[in-house]
Amino acid sequence: MRHHHERLGVRTSGRGTVDITDEVQAAVARAEVELGQCTVFVHHTSASLIICENADPSVRRDLEAFAARLVPDGDRLFTHTAEGPDDMPAHVRSVLTQCSLTIPVARGRADLGTWQGVYLWEHRHAAHRRNLTITVLGTGREG
Amino acid sequence: MRHHHERLGVRTSGRGTVDITDEVQAAVARAEVELGQCTVFVHHTSASLIICENADPSVRRDLEAFAARLVPDGDRLFTHTAEGPDDMPAHVRSVLTQCSLTIPVARGRADLGTWQGVYLWEHRHAAHRRNLTITVLGTGREG
Amino acid sequence: MRHHHERLGVRTSGRGTVDITDEVQAAVARAEVELGQCTVFVHHTSASLIICENADPSVRRDLEAFAARLVPDGDRLFTHTAEGPDDMPAHVRSVLTQCSLTIPVARGRADLGTWQGVYLWEHRHAAHRRNLTITVLGTGREG
Repeated sequence: MRHHHERLGVRTSGRGTVDITDEVQAAVARAEVELGQCTVFVHHTSASLIICENADPSVRRDLEAFAARLVPDGDRLFTHTAEGPDDMPAHVRSVLTQCSLTIPVARGRADLGTWQGVYLWEHRHAAHRRNLTITVLGTGREG
Repeated sequence: MRHHHERLGVRTSGRGTVDITDEVQAAVARAEVELGQCTVFVHHTSASLIICENADPSVRRDLEAFAARLVPDGDRLFTHTAEGPDDMPAHVRSVLTQCSLTIPVARGRADLGTWQGVYLWEHRHAAHRRNLTITVLGTGREG
Repeated sequence: MRHHHERLGVRTSGRGTVDITDEVQAAVARAEVELGQCTVFVHHTSASLIICENADPSVRRDLEAFAARLVPDGDRLFTHTAEGPDDMPAHVRSVLTQCSLTIPVARGRADLGTWQGVYLWEHRHAAHRRNLTITVLGTGREG
């Protein structure tokens, strides 16, 4: 059984999704795991991970619009406003999505469906550097 | 350490939940893993996975009603409508639930609570064939 | 490859979050895994798991207020009311959050970000004893 573990830093440019599919595939390649699974984890509470449709950017724009309507910035419900009107919405949006994703590995690649991309979702309006860990577990080519 | 990996196709009959608990238990049995964990992954962005109450079907009907109210078909917020009024809602519903579930394995079975069932949730109105991967990792009877 | 598996019982005092970060760290220490990953699973459908900001308790109070507004107790939409007005909301809140969390392990500890805590979220108003499983997989100090 092989076991690969690496840290990854991703720069965001403020609220929105960043496609990290290539970074995940590169980590799986470095792991030299043929069959197994890969887990991505984000070390923050105001950014999260999703798997989303990767072909039409309007899907992520609509998703962003939905999240902004569901959890409005500056909502009077929120008392935790120390870091601004997008602080508490960022925490709620993170809790409603994922801090870790586990994806199967087959034939040496993260075995995503044709239309599945892996995205880091920045929920704050300011740009951030976000830390991720990618873990890959499984069997190598030697079996 | 044992490692088992299999693909599973599940036919849905349109929007709603399909109980896949038996399929998960069968994969764990084939894995011959006594103690470890099992991960189920769905290779799509308009169907998802949930663990839900398994005794009273009204729970899943109410859950469906809640999702339909939270993310209405044909919502004017959405611009991504190429595949119809249920296209973008299906993506949002998937993002708000899970594309993978990890369940412990004990005594050779997925160690679900008494009232926990594993469901594939089809979010499109049309019937689909959905692809899943089940991975089982752990120790066998020999220790 | 080391593999550690344990059950944990947590008492809740009704609706709200219970910090289980110390319990997760203690399980990772007992596992004697230096590098790998840790998975926490809750064996119920009316309590769930989240990773959330751990410094300011107002974040979890606001999160609770948000959940109560999104999925109101006694909502007329719900037909599954046998166990009371918080029964079906508890199932919905569980589905919208997590039944399992996978966290990387590094230097013998669950490698959480500075502001990340692990919480069991009780969704019922009554106190409960909730069962969790913690699984740790990875390599020990000997490599």
